Amino acid sequence: MSDNTNRKVPSVVIKRLPRYYRYFGELLNQGIKRISSNALSEKMGVTASQIRQDFNYFGGFGQQGYGYKVEYLYNTIGDILGLHEGYTTIIVGAGNLGRALANHNFAKRGFRLMGMFDIDERIIGSKVNNVEIYHIDMMESFVRENNIDVGILTVPKSEIESIADRLCACGIKGLWNYSYAELKPKNNIPIENVHLSDSLMTLSYKIKQKE
Amino acid sequence: MSDNTNRKVPSVVIKRLPRYYRYFGELLNQGIKRISSNALSEKMGVTASQIRQDFNYFGGFGQQGYGYKVEYLYNTIGDILGLHEGYTTIIVGAGNLGRALANHNFAKRGFRLMGMFDIDERIIGSKVNNVEIYHIDMMESFVRENNIDVGILTVPKSEIESIADRLCACGIKGLWNYSYAELKPKNNIPIENVHLSDSLMTLSYKIKQKE
Repeated sequence: MSDNTNRKVPSVVIKRLPRYYRYFGELLNQGIKRISSNALSEKMGVTASQIRQDFNYFGGFGQQGYGYKVEYLYNTIGDILGLHEGYTTIIVGAGNLGRALANHNFAKRGFRLMGMFDIDERIIGSKVNNVEIYHIDMMESFVRENNIDVGILTVPKSEIESIADRLCACGIKGLWNYSYAELKPKNNIPIENVHLSDSLMTLSYKIKQKE
Repeated sequence: MSDNTNRKVPSVVIKRLPRYYRYFGELLNQGIKRISSNALSEKMGVTASQIRQDFNYFGGFGQQGYGYKVEYLYNTIGDILGLHEGYTTIIVGAGNLGRALANHNFAKRGFRLMGMFDIDERIIGSKVNNVEIYHIDMMESFVRENNIDVGILTVPKSEIESIADRLCACGIKGLWNYSYAELKPKNNIPIENVHLSDSLMTLSYKIKQKE
C-alpha cells in the first residue's frame, strides 16, 4: 500500500473530506463504533480502494483489517478540517439568504457566528438566531476587535468585490461567497465561491437522462 | 485520441458540466467567440487533457486545434444538461431559504418556478418574486395539474421524508433537497442533496493549512 503522507492533497480529496466527516458523524449518532472499508464504500458511493488512497494522504487512519474506528475518524477528520479551531464568522448581507445561513447553525461544525452586517437601517439592531445585525460601517472595527476569521458574503453581485477588499484589508482569513459572482483572488486568501445552481443543473441532467 | 461517446459518464464529469456551462456563459457575455483548450484549462483549473477527455464523453465538441467555439459549446452543454427542456419547479417551505431560492432567478438556467408551498397561514396568498405561496394541502393537485418536474425542498429535517414521498406519489421527476438530511432513495427518482456546510469545511481546511 502506498503512503501518500506529506504529498500535496489533491482538491478532489479535500472536497471528499467534509462528506467523510458527515458520514462518520451520522454513524457516531447511530452508536456505531466500527465500520469496514467495504460498508463505508457502499454508503459513500466511493470504492474501498479510493477511500484507502484518500486516507493515506493523512497517514491512513490505521487498522482497515478490523474496520475504521468511527469516533476516532470523526475527531481526526474534524481536526484536519480545522473544525476544532473555533473559527469565528460574520455574515455580510442580512437578507433572506443571510438569515437562512444565520439559522443554519454552523456552530455544530465548530463555527461561531459573531455578528451580521447590512445597510438597511430598519433592521440594524435586530437579531437573527440571537446574533445582532450591525450597520456595515461598523464592519472593519468589528472584524479587528473580534479577530473574525471567516466572512460569509450574501451581498449583491455589484458590491461583492468592494466588500471582499474591505474585509481583506482588516485581516479576514477566508471568504465564503454566495453572491453568484466568482470573486477575484485576494492576496492568497482562501475563497470558496458557492454556486447553488450547479447542483440544480446536475439534477436536470439526471432527469433528462432518464427520459 | 480515445472516443468516450456512449460510455457511461462518470459522476465527476457530470459535476464539472455546470462549471463548463457557467464559464462558457461568461465568455459569451464578454463577446469572446473562441477559446483555446489551454486558456480554458487555465481558467477552469483543470488540465487541457482532462477537458478533452471530459468533452469526449459527448462527442468531443470538435475543432480543438482552432479552439472551442464558445456559443456552440454554451448551447450544446446547456442542451446536455437539459436546460432547454423548460423544466418546471415548486419550492416547498417559504422560510428564509425558500425565499432566497425564489429570488435566485433560476429562470436564467431555464427553470420555471411555478409556486411555493407552506403551512403558515399568515403568508399563504402572498408572493415572492411574483410567485404565489399556496397552502401545502394544495401541493399534490398543483403538481399534477401543472406537470411540475422538480421539487425544491427547504422544509425542516423532520418533514423531509414525508414531503418527498408525497411529491413522488404525484409524479415529480427530481428532488433538490436543502433540508440538511440525506434523502433516502425514492423509486429511482434523481435526488440532489445540498450540504451547504461542506464548502465551509473545505474553506476551513484551507485556512488551517495556511496557518
